[in-house]
Amino acid sequence: MSELRKDPIVDRWVIIAAERGRRPTDYETPAPTPGGPGCPLCEGNERMTPPEIWALRPGGSPPDGPGWQVRVVPNKYPALRVEGTPERHGLGMLDSMDGVGAHEVVVESPRHRWQMADGPPEAIQRVLLACQLRLSDLYQDDRLRYCVIFRNHGSEAGATISHPHSQIMAIPVVPGRVKSKLDAAREYYARKERCIFCDLLAQELQLGERIVMDNGRFVAIAPYASRFPFELAIYPREHSSDFTAMDEPTRASLAEILQQSLSYLRPALGSPSYNYIINVAPNPVPRPGKPHYWSTLHLDYHWHIEILPRVTSIAGFEWGTGFYINPVAPEDAARFLRDAMRGAPEVTSGG
Amino acid sequence: MSELRKDPIVDRWVIIAAERGRRPTDYETPAPTPGGPGCPLCEGNERMTPPEIWALRPGGSPPDGPGWQVRVVPNKYPALRVEGTPERHGLGMLDSMDGVGAHEVVVESPRHRWQMADGPPEAIQRVLLACQLRLSDLYQDDRLRYCVIFRNHGSEAGATISHPHSQIMAIPVVPGRVKSKLDAAREYYARKERCIFCDLLAQELQLGERIVMDNGRFVAIAPYASRFPFELAIYPREHSSDFTAMDEPTRASLAEILQQSLSYLRPALGSPSYNYIINVAPNPVPRPGKPHYWSTLHLDYHWHIEILPRVTSIAGFEWGTGFYINPVAPEDAARFLRDAMRGAPEVTSGG
Repeated sequence: MSELRKDPIVDRWVIIAAERGRRPTDYETPAPTPGGPGCPLCEGNERMTPPEIWALRPGGSPPDGPGWQVRVVPNKYPALRVEGTPERHGLGMLDSMDGVGAHEVVVESPRHRWQMADGPPEAIQRVLLACQLRLSDLYQDDRLRYCVIFRNHGSEAGATISHPHSQIMAIPVVPGRVKSKLDAAREYYARKERCIFCDLLAQELQLGERIVMDNGRFVAIAPYASRFPFELAIYPREHSSDFTAMDEPTRASLAEILQQSLSYLRPALGSPSYNYIINVAPNPVPRPGKPHYWSTLHLDYHWHIEILPRVTSIAGFEWGTGFYINPVAPEDAARFLRDAMRGAPEVTSGG
Repeated sequence: MSELRKDPIVDRWVIIAAERGRRPTDYETPAPTPGGPGCPLCEGNERMTPPEIWALRPGGSPPDGPGWQVRVVPNKYPALRVEGTPERHGLGMLDSMDGVGAHEVVVESPRHRWQMADGPPEAIQRVLLACQLRLSDLYQDDRLRYCVIFRNHGSEAGATISHPHSQIMAIPVVPGRVKSKLDAAREYYARKERCIFCDLLAQELQLGERIVMDNGRFVAIAPYASRFPFELAIYPREHSSDFTAMDEPTRASLAEILQQSLSYLRPALGSPSYNYIINVAPNPVPRPGKPHYWSTLHLDYHWHIEILPRVTSIAGFEWGTGFYINPVAPEDAARFLRDAMRGAPEVTSGG
């Protein structure tokens, strides 16, 4: 059983996922796999994964065999396990919790070489649907306080299996990073009776210089305080705190803007490694007397996706301060991406 | 001029260090340099750097020529510049500040192939002395609110020049990450009239299982909530908020424990890339009416060094939550390092 531990000084949790009996030097993660017989996520190799949780099988094929378009399975080497209750323990200044949670893999395509940046958007729509359904299901479980949905693409982004996949991790606490966003949204709403994300979006749309794309339902922005070159954020234009509530036409629009965003990073950065994170609200379990991130529906939150290309390194300065040094102004990145979309990549010498 | 920008939602600053006229795709950092004629930090190549700020020249040799043991120069490509005042600007929800600060390089040895892990401790003592003197000097400048002293070793840790060096960056704001530690220390002191770091150290010394080394003046610990395999923290045993106040015998003890810590990471991890960060208190400029991290001497803070080996990747889960997944229990790491020090590496099957 893994263990969650809280830093005794600051609000930061870690998951100590040491397997009993393993030597401390034996923790290497597996190397990227080729497709075919050795890949546990390729079609035909369904027996190499734990039994599937959910799959889209348009032909009605039976579980754990071929014939699927998207398939969700438990992670074979989960950082957290679903059994047990997340008991909190204390020893003086040291706080811990049992490593209860869920760790699932969304296999995005039966094809090893499929690239999300190539689309078609319909394939991405299916992946998003799988994420929505799994999130709804996981949030039925009161023990699971927060879910993070993310995609690691390329080895610099921490991907250890090259077959296209996303991951969903459900954890028994609301992370400090998420609390900061929730607190900001809540305080702003209390003061202005408006959503902080909606207001930011309105200002960015009015200024225009950091807008990359706007398809009517979603806007892709190079964030004002981007940590990384060509970092992007995708926001639904209409306020929504609930990722699972997204309907079919909205999902189609999101698939389209996501595919375009990823595809226009290529002329900018080659074929970069990247992480994307779907930032959703915590599990809205009503718990009277608990802090607000336990007890409300988080209607003042506005879900969004962050795309983080991984082309710069994180060094001592970043670790020591939490600051990032970004050598590309977001306005320049946005202009470059807009030009790439128009098929005429050209960069002026602004700064 | 670079620009500091604050994220409009959370308390996180970034430095946008885009050079005017550069194409956004031209931001690659230089590749690791070989020693000799091409290395700007090797002895004999002093003209390749900006004029030195400070150097230890036991033979009394003139500045910017050979004959030094440690040499501090301005970074040739600084992320921040010393000219100007750190004016704050606002545009609706968007906050920025001029990129005023300092960015210095501590060249730790005239020899390209010197490794800090090899010592001798006297050489490390000289590096620490340089850092203390530079910190004292930079904190004479009221505009500089915080200094971070760090070392990037190896390409995975973001080092772009392989010649042994540390860096000092002085910035015009106290970073959120540092404020969290200061706030924790202050609240704890207000409640208990004791230092939170001293209390944590006392508990860890009593438990023993995460202690790696204790040389009487300093203790090296595998932190309870380590983010990375074999992460280490070095604390002065005696409470001190002021890194610059460290005297010569204390500096010798620190050099010794730092050299030993780095050297025993080798049997554990090969020759890992790592970052270390000297966590010092902010500039104690008295500013009545400002929050406490502006206005006090931070006597309740306890400076320390974090050593972060870079052998695992940071992926979507970490970006989305601020959580880290660590596959090596700190107790196992500490035992492994203690055994390595005794010359008898042996690991039992605990977890």
